[in-house]
Amino acid sequence: MTLQRTVTGMIIGLALTTVTAANADPIVTERHTVTLNTITQELNKPWGMAFLPSGDLLVTEKAGTLRLVSLTGSISEPLAGVPAVVDSGQGGLLDVAIDPDFATNSWVYLSYSEADPNGGKGSSTAVMRAKLTPTGLTDGTVIFRAAPKYERAAHFGSRLVFSPEGHLFITLGDRFSAKDDAQTLDTHHGKVVRIMPDGSIPADNPFVTTVGALAEIWSYGHRNVQGAAIHPATGELWTAEHGPKGGDEINIPAAGKNYGWPIATYGVNYDDTIISPLTHVDGTEQPHYYWVPSIAISNMIFYTGDQFPAWHGDLLVAALKGSHVARLDLEGERVMHEEILFAGGIGQRVRDIEQGPDGYIYLLTDDRSGRLIQIKPAE
Amino acid sequence: MTLQRTVTGMIIGLALTTVTAANADPIVTERHTVTLNTITQELNKPWGMAFLPSGDLLVTEKAGTLRLVSLTGSISEPLAGVPAVVDSGQGGLLDVAIDPDFATNSWVYLSYSEADPNGGKGSSTAVMRAKLTPTGLTDGTVIFRAAPKYERAAHFGSRLVFSPEGHLFITLGDRFSAKDDAQTLDTHHGKVVRIMPDGSIPADNPFVTTVGALAEIWSYGHRNVQGAAIHPATGELWTAEHGPKGGDEINIPAAGKNYGWPIATYGVNYDDTIISPLTHVDGTEQPHYYWVPSIAISNMIFYTGDQFPAWHGDLLVAALKGSHVARLDLEGERVMHEEILFAGGIGQRVRDIEQGPDGYIYLLTDDRSGRLIQIKPAE
Ligand SMILES: [Ca+2]
Ligand SMILES: [Ca+2]
Repeated sequence: MTLQRTVTGMIIGLALTTVTAANADPIVTERHTVTLNTITQELNKPWGMAFLPSGDLLVTEKAGTLRLVSLTGSISEPLAGVPAVVDSGQGGLLDVAIDPDFATNSWVYLSYSEADPNGGKGSSTAVMRAKLTPTGLTDGTVIFRAAPKYERAAHFGSRLVFSPEGHLFITLGDRFSAKDDAQTLDTHHGKVVRIMPDGSIPADNPFVTTVGALAEIWSYGHRNVQGAAIHPATGELWTAEHGPKGGDEINIPAAGKNYGWPIATYGVNYDDTIISPLTHVDGTEQPHYYWVPSIAISNMIFYTGDQFPAWHGDLLVAALKGSHVARLDLEGERVMHEEILFAGGIGQRVRDIEQGPDGYIYLLTDDRSGRLIQIKPAE
Repeated sequence: MTLQRTVTGMIIGLALTTVTAANADPIVTERHTVTLNTITQELNKPWGMAFLPSGDLLVTEKAGTLRLVSLTGSISEPLAGVPAVVDSGQGGLLDVAIDPDFATNSWVYLSYSEADPNGGKGSSTAVMRAKLTPTGLTDGTVIFRAAPKYERAAHFGSRLVFSPEGHLFITLGDRFSAKDDAQTLDTHHGKVVRIMPDGSIPADNPFVTTVGALAEIWSYGHRNVQGAAIHPATGELWTAEHGPKGGDEINIPAAGKNYGWPIATYGVNYDDTIISPLTHVDGTEQPHYYWVPSIAISNMIFYTGDQFPAWHGDLLVAALKGSHVARLDLEGERVMHEEILFAGGIGQRVRDIEQGPDGYIYLLTDDRSGRLIQIKPAE
């Protein structure tokens, strides 16, 4: 654990910006009374976070900075070695994940919008793998690049999550202007892809032998997938996908399946015109659960900690537009009930949600005074 | 079809109380734009309704009257031959169903709260079978009596629905004061029972060979089940059950299973005290879907008509407290989405919901100026 101590040590030398958490009022929910404690409100449009074995967090900021943040509110200077990003529209530095074997290999994964290396105007989602060291990231390698590059700076996805078998899932978006790409297998847009941590392609990916199909593709027909989590009992990938106006979806993407966008949807265009008159199309899968109107679902977790026993096994889905967390009470895979948590209690768009090693729940809010919020049982 | 013509003819001689449906404003829902047309508002606390092959309705009123109602708003005088009921609290004349072979046998089934035939103060849910004739009901026989009788005039159930195999399901309540009865097999309270139309007991009922158990019992651990419908694809019984404060439940009662009340519940007492600290107890089934807070779910239907194609296969659940209809968008048995229909558009508690032979949807409201409402696609 030398690395952890060193990484933690690196923080100590930095200017402390600790914000004492306000004495938050208890919030009564159906099953638990909790407090929302603001650990810091000095993050600039944070997008993703990942807990290190030390208990500190890696946090991305959309403009292109990666920082270490402690649960006492210390924020490091930007770490070196982060890839250049196209910070435009919805693009920028997006998610961060650590390797399942991080304690021994120090690998960190970053998703981001990458410029066209040939100098064109377009960009697309890419994923870099690099080693976390006391002086920042080193040995960075781009292990995935979504193709083709497009100019429209929207719908990049992109969450990073590891399967129990060690595959890396990358969730992607349809780039908004190219939504029909979600139905073809010759681009990465509107797909969930599955690769090995070094960027190689698993031999059992569903389209490895399909002529004209990109071998990284795991599932397709997605709009903009910004949430991903592995079900703790089944080991299956679950995803959260933004609909247009209406039609936010939870899916359980299976190998090679088509999730319908844009030929089947519960949503309409923002101006109320029809995208597709159909919600059901043969050969496409229905969502596992959906929202009309949209709450703009970002990331989600299956809660497995001990701090909130009545939430154990539940799916907690962060909402940007809703500024809340939707709790889906699950029995196996079945949604039995939805509770809206913290409506009006956050006041900012919720961009990421993670469970800490301490069993508390952590939120990032999407704001220039972005907050890291710790959710604890009320005393 | 002599019977139908005669029954219809009987109405013609009555004083007409037709109310011209107001030009209802179109109501926009997620998938259909509809109008709510009041066919009559002159029903006195109607509770149950059943369509006859003629297209007319049999409607119960809680005080103990059964009437024929036409879709033009004609209401008959009370039909003769209805059993005496104890119209007190939640008791009275409750549901009505017609035999699957009604066209040939004219059998009608009524559930109601029945006085103690021995002169005691108690009452309990009973079911009478009788033949519908032009002069009213004849040949009435009580085919089921819930035991024991209790004085508290609450939680009688009771919906009547036939299985595809011709069994009659009767849904019951825990009588409120006797909620622990829901967990024992020696009373009918808090149970769903299954009998043959003549009152005999199906040989394959789950407890027919269990010493000390009542052979009519199909499932137990219910609180107050006032909704029932048969899933059109699976043929299985689905039920809607009132929770206390919170914990209204949809269940799919299977033979011999325990649905948890009062040892496992998502609700609390009306004064917020705890009924059970547990939502999960070994040996009990989780609800298929539940509501917190309660909306007070009464009856429900699986919509199978042609008038509302986008609602086909959906479960429409009437709500008393909510004065609305909850639409559960189902994929197979899975609830993918809940839409609240007509919130604020009805203004009275919704006591019953049925699908007409015309594919329209019909509601009864629980009021002394109770309405029969016809839901149609907007022109
Ligand atoms: Ca979809
Ligand atoms: Ca139950």
